[in-house]
Formats: sequence, C-alpha cells, structure tokens
Amino acid sequence: MPEPPLPAAIADELAQPWQATISTVHPDGQPVSVPTWYLHEDGRILVNMDAGRKRLGHLRATPRGSLSAIDPDDWFTHISILGHVGEMVEDTDLRDIDRVARHYTGKPYAVRDRPRVSAWVDIDRWHAWGRLTDVR
Amino acid sequence: MPEPPLPAAIADELAQPWQATISTVHPDGQPVSVPTWYLHEDGRILVNMDAGRKRLGHLRATPRGSLSAIDPDDWFTHISILGHVGEMVEDTDLRDIDRVARHYTGKPYAVRDRPRVSAWVDIDRWHAWGRLTDVR
Repeated sequence: MPEPPLPAAIADELAQPWQATISTVHPDGQPVSVPTWYLHEDGRILVNMDAGRKRLGHLRATPRGSLSAIDPDDWFTHISILGHVGEMVEDTDLRDIDRVARHYTGKPYAVRDRPRVSAWVDIDRWHAWGRLTDVR
Repeated sequence: MPEPPLPAAIADELAQPWQATISTVHPDGQPVSVPTWYLHEDGRILVNMDAGRKRLGHLRATPRGSLSAIDPDDWFTHISILGHVGEMVEDTDLRDIDRVARHYTGKPYAVRDRPRVSAWVDIDRWHAWGRLTDVR
C-alpha cells in the first residue's frame, strides 16, 4: 500500500462527503467498526465523537485506526486509510463537529448539549479501488 | 451491545444488499478496513475474498472481525456486528461468490479464473442505529 502524501486525485475524492466507516481495536483485540462522518484536512483525517463513546477509550488504549470511504454513487470506488491517532482534543465549542456536519448536511450539528472529542488520524498508508485503482 | 440472535427487524434489514465494510486486525495490531459485499445466512455473516487477499492472513492469525452495514438510502441507519470467524472454506466452485454477487448485482461473479475463499463470521454482539436504534 502506498504512503502519503495522497495524490491530488485521491484527495479530491476524499474531500467529497462520502460514506465512511472507522475501525478501531478493543483492548481485548476485537476489531470494532462503526459508520462515521469524516473530514480530510491538511493531510489528516478528522473524526468527531460524543465524549461518551467507548471508541474513545479504544483509541486511547490503541491509538490506531482505519477509515474506509465509499463513493455513494459508485460502490466499487473506495479509499481505505491505515493510520494512527496523532491528536485527540476536546471539541469545546463544537467547532469541529459543526464543520463536519455542514460538510454532510449543510447545517450545524443538531445536538448542542453533549461534549464531543475530535480525533485527528495521521495517514500511514492508503489504498484505492474502482475508478481510482490506478492512481498513484 | 446485545447478543444474538438478531431480532427479525434487524435480520430483515441485513438481508438487503447494503453497503458494508469489514474490519480485521493486522498481526501488528493495526485495524484494517475494506468495503465488502456480504450475506447474512443462517445467523452468520458470509464474506468472500480473492485467495490472494492479505486479509485472509489477518483472519487466520486473528479470527475476529467487525462488519458495519449501512442503508444506502438512509445513512443514519446502520447495523454493526462484532464477531469471530468460525469457518473459512475454499469456494471451490465459486458457489458462494456467485450467490453474493447475484444478491448485489443480479448476476454471477464476473471473474472466473481466480480462487476464492469464504469466511463465515459468527455474530457475538450487534448494534443498530438510526431507525433501528430502539429494536431489541
């Protein structure tokens, strides 16, 4: 699998609001996956979670993650990222989740009374498929 | 997270050709995710891979997986499965991949000259979201 930086053609697609799933590892070794919104910013992947999510504990114990993003109009075309969590920060003013929500829905995030955390995933390797298979 | 058997309302949705991503763990501890077709049959999840896939080695070393399936018409509605690989078998006559391909495309699988392997994932726990959040 190639290493970053991502080619422009891959970054351009990842900038679309694609369906995505993030995978982490439970401390007992079980892989755990859940659909998520994401943003690709400054070469990193941003995912944002309710502060009560178990996934936060998984990421603190094992700060590694994988994101698979799928073109909703062409399921064969997808980009998978292997990475590690370089930074986790409280999203104190909901600035990050609002940015993510606007990207997907055009509106700020609806839930305003729950604390949230942003995880920034540094990309270690990536892989693309479908119409992006030959992009290097 | 609830344990199986899946409620009928969950099983009925999982029987649709939803977009899905399967996650495994690399022997070095890195979670690895990739979009996949799947079938839910007899209470297990079937995923089928080209025999050359690295994912097969991951599953043999750590026979645990997680599948997240998303309703393509309603992204908030999804089902995530935590499970373990109870059985891996050569798909010698492409019977399994043809069944999976017909489920998604209506046609047998196009590639006929590559060996394939079926992994049967036993469901340990599950979780649903969106319009299925309250199904128990």
